[in-house]
Formats: sequence, structure tokens, C-alpha cells
Amino acid sequence: MTIEIAAIGAQRPTVLAALEQEFVLHKVWDAPDLKAALAPHAERIRGAVSHGMVGLPTAAIEALPKLEICAINGVGLETTDLALARQRGIAVTITPVLYDDVADLAILLGMAACRRLAEADRYVRAGKWLEGRMDLGRKFSGKRAGIMGIGRIGQAVAKRLAAFDMTIGYYDPIAKPDLPYQAYASPVALAEASELLFLCAAGGAGVRNLVTAEILDALGPKGVFVNIARGWLVDEPALVSALLEGRLGAAGLDVFAAEPKVPEALLGLDNVVLTPHIASNTAETMQAMGDCVLANIRSWFKGEGALTAVA
Amino acid sequence: MTIEIAAIGAQRPTVLAALEQEFVLHKVWDAPDLKAALAPHAERIRGAVSHGMVGLPTAAIEALPKLEICAINGVGLETTDLALARQRGIAVTITPVLYDDVADLAILLGMAACRRLAEADRYVRAGKWLEGRMDLGRKFSGKRAGIMGIGRIGQAVAKRLAAFDMTIGYYDPIAKPDLPYQAYASPVALAEASELLFLCAAGGAGVRNLVTAEILDALGPKGVFVNIARGWLVDEPALVSALLEGRLGAAGLDVFAAEPKVPEALLGLDNVVLTPHIASNTAETMQAMGDCVLANIRSWFKGEGALTAVA
Repeated sequence: MTIEIAAIGAQRPTVLAALEQEFVLHKVWDAPDLKAALAPHAERIRGAVSHGMVGLPTAAIEALPKLEICAINGVGLETTDLALARQRGIAVTITPVLYDDVADLAILLGMAACRRLAEADRYVRAGKWLEGRMDLGRKFSGKRAGIMGIGRIGQAVAKRLAAFDMTIGYYDPIAKPDLPYQAYASPVALAEASELLFLCAAGGAGVRNLVTAEILDALGPKGVFVNIARGWLVDEPALVSALLEGRLGAAGLDVFAAEPKVPEALLGLDNVVLTPHIASNTAETMQAMGDCVLANIRSWFKGEGALTAVA
Repeated sequence: MTIEIAAIGAQRPTVLAALEQEFVLHKVWDAPDLKAALAPHAERIRGAVSHGMVGLPTAAIEALPKLEICAINGVGLETTDLALARQRGIAVTITPVLYDDVADLAILLGMAACRRLAEADRYVRAGKWLEGRMDLGRKFSGKRAGIMGIGRIGQAVAKRLAAFDMTIGYYDPIAKPDLPYQAYASPVALAEASELLFLCAAGGAGVRNLVTAEILDALGPKGVFVNIARGWLVDEPALVSALLEGRLGAAGLDVFAAEPKVPEALLGLDNVVLTPHIASNTAETMQAMGDCVLANIRSWFKGEGALTAVA
């Protein structure tokens, strides 16, 4: 009897094709009513695949009494009811293969903001170089960098910053005495000591507006803010007005509070670099993430357990 | 008697103001005929200031029989007649404070080309994110990087690339057995082994088209080419057609053969990132370079010698 699987979050076509070949696959990610879509098969569905923005929500767990495993394409768990999954004994797996890409984009956004890269590219394409010289950018190497949330991504960012001779500080609610960087007692203290601030915190359930107006003011008119975490972790109206009024120097932003909507006021600013949540969107990493989802599902149903389950 | 100085290359306003306060300054960088402009003062001019693109050309040396020192704002010497300067005993100084900025921009251009940063920023500003997802970029970390010309800038690039877990190779006509990177016997061999190729060679007099069509083809349709050296070191028509035809994957270019003119065909391409020769154009480094020019001139005429003379 073929095992039945629910795709509650969309997957790459190659992953879907492989799942369809090996399992009975129910594609329900676009269903207006998840429970109703799952109901006819609920007693037979033993596995699920999802992605980071959808996760494994309470409703899906409740709708799937026989669920054994959910393989999530991504690492964010803020939409996953981990407590209920644990209680039910459901294995939840992530794809811990995207940290390099996310850390790379953090460095790229910080450096692009300092060196005015997107503005420079527009400048050349518009023919302005024929008429004059661009305003000066700011040096990247040798600056004081602060990292808010120094888990796997934050540590990968720090490792890269060190090669640019940065002085590195961090704030994290969990003490990490083994790290060779200076710990600060609060995000405001970190921002005051930093010229660049990288938000690398996890977007845990219920956590909002970690980055307040006070933190942005502490970073100041020459400061650079980078967000590759989640948009809702920032007081976005405060960020927009600080950038508009020059109270914050510049920002590199990959995530937004109501993405794919981006605050209109940012779209005309030269002191921001804007990317459409592409931190892990590389061909290599998408392939590796898809492979990881498949490998977890296959391993589980061969009776060999999950490969990259969350603790 | 006040010492007389010729500014044969333009300087920042603050540097000019300081020079005018301490010396008699002859500003001749815009003169249509350098010799004619210098002639009335030639017997009294003992110092000169210039910049990297103008240097200390043969004509200036011949026009200034009493010249003792030329302080160049920059590090390029391709327009400086170093042989004649040596023969005449003229000290030539550079500003060795820009290597970090240039290496930073090399990394920035390489990563921006891989991750499609300028395109991503345009995508968001044009509102396209509301309609779909951008095409995938390519991973930066972990790639095979090749460095053509591994002097001070090339080594600063290599140090940064190592933090991105790159495998690093290089080609340099001067053997550098102390470097912990793999040496290749030719630029083509290096390009064949590389996914990213960074041109970091000095733009020496008479050197042109180091990067040939053959090298670009060896880099290939997934390869990324970065130039932060000089535009004329590349066969630019070959580069443009390789990018247009997809025989080369992408490029990040800060310099061009006939800058500020940029080949028209590049201006509409998404697989290039274009910057207007800003490799050392940061506020911090411009300040440091100006300070370095002044410090050399002051030190020399206090009888304390040049500070950053070329060997």
C-alpha cells in the first residue's frame, strides 16, 4: 500500500515530481480550507511537506491524526506548533543548508548600503557618469558591527565580518560565553556601540518589533541596519521614518512586515537596498533544500528515522 | 622664501586649501598645454601633487627641472615615468591606504553578480515582487575563485574570499611561493579552474588586454568576471559579446576601457553590475589619501624625507 503524503506548503517542481513517483501526494497548499481539503484522506496521510513561511500549523496537526513526520523546506519555525507536534510525537525536520546563503546576503546588503552599490549601478545605467562623479560611499572594512541574535546565521555573519577586520559585538538573550565576540547587555547598548547592525534573530512565535525606534536612534545617522531575519521583528514605520529623516544612515532589507508589499516610501530612497526575500534563493541551495526534504521523507518511511529533525 | 608646488592632478578641496596655506600652489591640471602652463614657474617648482590617472608623466618631469618630489593620490603608476623620475632622483609617493576599499568592492561586485543584487533592487522598486518571484541567483560561498595578479589588492581579496570558504587560485607573473593559494601557470588555466575570476593586476604602462576572449570562454557560461583594476586590461568588445551571448555568466565591473563611457550594450543587461570607478571612493579613504599626500609633501620639505615612496 502506497504511503500518502500532504504537501501543505508548495515545493519545487522536481521535489513534487519525485514525491508523486514514490508516494500518493495530496497538494493542498492552495486550498482555501485546509481541513476540508485534507478530510477525505486524513486517516491515511502519514507524512507532510511544507516550507518555512507555512510551517506545520496547529490546524494541520489537528487535521492529520496519523501524521508521523513533516519535512519543512526552510529553517524558520515561527508558524509551526512545535509543542503540539512534540506532544503527538510528530518529527519535524528543517533544511539546515541555507546558512551560508543567508549570511552571504547579510554581508552583501551591509556592504552594498555602505558603498551605495544599487545607486551606483543606477547612476551608470542612467548615463550620469558622463556628467560628474557620484557622492562618496562609506568604507566597509574595519567598522564596528553588531549582531542581534547570534545563532547559526549570526555566527556565519560574524565569521565573514572578521575577514573585513570588523570589531564584532552581539546581543543574544541566550548567553554564549564560548564566542570570541563582545556580548552587550541590551540591543540598545549594542546599537550604540555599532556602526552596522545585523538582525539575525529567529522569528519565534509572538515575537514582534525587537528592533525599536530607540535602537535605530542609537545606531544613528551614520549607522547601517541590515535585516535578513523577518520583517515583523522590526518596528517598520519607525525604520521608514528614520531613513526618510536621515536619523538612520542606510539600510539593506531583504524582509518586510507585509511582504511582498514594501513600504511605498522606501521605493524612492537612495539610502536603502531592497531585495525580495531572496536570502536563500540560490540555485545551489534550493536544490540542496529540496534534496533535504526528500531525503527526510524517504529515510523516515524506510524506517531509518528523520535526518535533520529539530531538537 | 616659500616653496612652490604644482598641482598637475586635481586634489580634494581640503588638500588644495592646506597646500595653498603652506606653499605657493600652481594649479595646472586643467591647462591645455602643461609645459606652457608650468614654464613661468618651472625654475622654482620643487614639488608636485597628482592623482592616479594622471601620475607623473614624462612631460611634467621634463618641464620641471628642479622637481624633488611628486605625491600621487592613488596607487596606480601606469602614467608615471618612473624610470625618468629615478634617473632624476625625484621621489614619487603613493597613498597605500586604499587596498581595503578596493578589495571590499571586488567582493561586493562578485557577490552582487552571483546574487543578482542590482537586479533584485530594481525588481522590488518596480513593484514586480507583487506579481511573482525573481529568478534564482547563484551561491557565493564555497565557490572556486581565481585571482589574476596577486599583489596587495589581490591578497586582500583572497583573505576575504577565504572567510566565504572559497577555494582560491591565482595567476601572477611573479612567483609568490609564500602564499597559501594554488598558483596556475597561465590565466587560461586559472580561468578554467575558477567559477569567479577577479582581475587585480596593476595597469602597468603598455599592458593591455590581459583578459582575452579565450580566458572569458574558459570561465564559461556560469562564470563570473570581476574587474576592479583597469578597463584597458580587458578585451572589452570580447567581454561585451560574451555577456550578451551568455558565453560568460555575469560580470561586476568598476572600470572600463574608455570610462566614463560604458559600452552601450551593457547598460540594459541584467547579468552585469556596473559601478563608476568607485573602488576607493569612500569618505574615510578619500580623507586618508588626502592626508597621505599632504603628509608626504610636508615631510619632504621639512627635510624628513618621503613617507610612502615607491621602491
